[in-house]
Amino acid sequence: MAVKPIEWLGNRIKILDQTRLPLEEVYLETHDYLEVCTAIKQLVVRGAPSIGVAGGYAIALGALKIKSEFNNIFIKEYQVVSRTVAATRPTARNLFFAVERMDKVAGTAGTVEEIKQALVDEAVKIHNEEAEATEKLSDYGAELIEDGFTVLTHCNAGPLATTGYGTALGVIIRAKEQGKNVSVYADETRPLLQGARLTTWELQQAGVPVTLITDSMAGYMMSQGRIDCVITGADRITANGDTANKIGTYTLAVLAKEHNIPFYIAAPFSTIDTSLKTGDDIPIEERNPEEITHFQGVQTAPDNTSVENPAFDVTPHRYITAIITERGIIREPFHEGIKRWK
Amino acid sequence: MAVKPIEWLGNRIKILDQTRLPLEEVYLETHDYLEVCTAIKQLVVRGAPSIGVAGGYAIALGALKIKSEFNNIFIKEYQVVSRTVAATRPTARNLFFAVERMDKVAGTAGTVEEIKQALVDEAVKIHNEEAEATEKLSDYGAELIEDGFTVLTHCNAGPLATTGYGTALGVIIRAKEQGKNVSVYADETRPLLQGARLTTWELQQAGVPVTLITDSMAGYMMSQGRIDCVITGADRITANGDTANKIGTYTLAVLAKEHNIPFYIAAPFSTIDTSLKTGDDIPIEERNPEEITHFQGVQTAPDNTSVENPAFDVTPHRYITAIITERGIIREPFHEGIKRWK
Repeated sequence: MAVKPIEWLGNRIKILDQTRLPLEEVYLETHDYLEVCTAIKQLVVRGAPSIGVAGGYAIALGALKIKSEFNNIFIKEYQVVSRTVAATRPTARNLFFAVERMDKVAGTAGTVEEIKQALVDEAVKIHNEEAEATEKLSDYGAELIEDGFTVLTHCNAGPLATTGYGTALGVIIRAKEQGKNVSVYADETRPLLQGARLTTWELQQAGVPVTLITDSMAGYMMSQGRIDCVITGADRITANGDTANKIGTYTLAVLAKEHNIPFYIAAPFSTIDTSLKTGDDIPIEERNPEEITHFQGVQTAPDNTSVENPAFDVTPHRYITAIITERGIIREPFHEGIKRWK
Repeated sequence: MAVKPIEWLGNRIKILDQTRLPLEEVYLETHDYLEVCTAIKQLVVRGAPSIGVAGGYAIALGALKIKSEFNNIFIKEYQVVSRTVAATRPTARNLFFAVERMDKVAGTAGTVEEIKQALVDEAVKIHNEEAEATEKLSDYGAELIEDGFTVLTHCNAGPLATTGYGTALGVIIRAKEQGKNVSVYADETRPLLQGARLTTWELQQAGVPVTLITDSMAGYMMSQGRIDCVITGADRITANGDTANKIGTYTLAVLAKEHNIPFYIAAPFSTIDTSLKTGDDIPIEERNPEEITHFQGVQTAPDNTSVENPAFDVTPHRYITAIITERGIIREPFHEGIKRWK
């Protein structure tokens, strides 16, 4: 991939600031795990798999800075680091997946220096595995895309979101590489316009024709017969297949059902959380009202307007045609496929 | 009403610039019918009934400026005025309703001076009738709103859009005046944010609690059981009840059906076009791509991004629970109710 959203430079991390794209390519380079936490909160780095990768590196950076050589002191300070990273965002499963893996490594035997090195190695491993997973799932998913298909996608689930090949966009780009004629409608994805800013940019770089629409136009495009399938990424998938993803995804799923259009989720297994039975258990992040009352810093609503700003919604599994993973394509009954391959 | 979106000052028109609300209250005052045409095109004045009223006055202003006292020359120049006004926007039925009424008056017997006066009188009459119609339909519609209801609305269908009491918002405000506890979720309504800018502002002035959400959140709110009914205005309704309204309305209708929530259209009869059999016949305005790639002058998508920007969509009548008009509430079979009362 031409663009690296996250790069590990041995003792520090380099993060592409996704809030400044597509007009500016600005990088944050830091040794400070708290700066990485802020970057996650402010969506400098975003997309469930990328959040997980950044979270792993943040913990490694925090651990490297711990001065004590005594294991008992190290582990106490490590826990502060780990909990701080885990508290950055509540919905993406991949973050907790990374935190759990790092915590396990932190608890192994060895000197503090050895554990620090093992933590760095584990963060790099998480990064590599996430990237490889998206390559594999793109291969599986591309089989679902027929020549001539127009795909609708929401938010951004490309290389920026995944540090790898992309999930929803990975599937589309792989289909294009297979010689299929494929084009995309990209929802702009209010409030933060990841579709307008990032999905258009990534698909243009990949040579996939993309047309930008507002979120409110998806139903109209389906009613005109212009959409052959919907593919989105995911932030968390529960044991029964219910899927949390960017707010607006559920609406697309309902629209797809009404128009008899397949609705696909593309996500690595690190997004699947079998500790939760159904989507009702997924915590939904409520973000700053100013994301809605202001647009790129310009106020658009009257002062003191009441706002709700859930960042995600949950699509019940009955609306999902298939979940595309690096281990294969899962269909109803989802709980069986998830259990079999987990 | 505290705010007058359109005021006739005897020989000129005063228009509240709705593109500058809610942060600035700026008026355009002009004798020039072409300035009024530009105001309609640029949404300085907007909302189907308000477009109709402004169109009537624009024709009157154009007629007043014709210098010839010979009827045959007058009528030729009048036709240029009338056609120019009719070409400002393609979807709102109310505009053509006003143009047809003005054309009929222009064709009556009398001196040019008498015809000019009759045209001014007709424009004022259209204005008064539109205002009265929204009062009456609000009375009918308020009966559908139960105490404690939370209503979802899209775009803006209040006093600004109608020059009167409002259609969708008129119904809500009347229910509130009847002592009912009613609150509203307002879709921000991309791309031009009429919900964020205008609906919140009008409801706050009327003392109705309103919460602003992005268009993509409506499905989530319904899935959480937070919406009791949906009410929107309309830009054109065909003989069978199919309804064109702001892009995104169709999506709300599909969502409402999926959640068993009533979906109401509120519109005066001037919006109903029985010359068209179904919604397939309604011309849909395609607007400037920059409404989507830029916001308040700030670019948000990459250069040369392909865009589609239909300003309206069509909701087939089978999704509509009832159409609220000044002559009563119409339900399936809509074509019979429309025919009976037209």
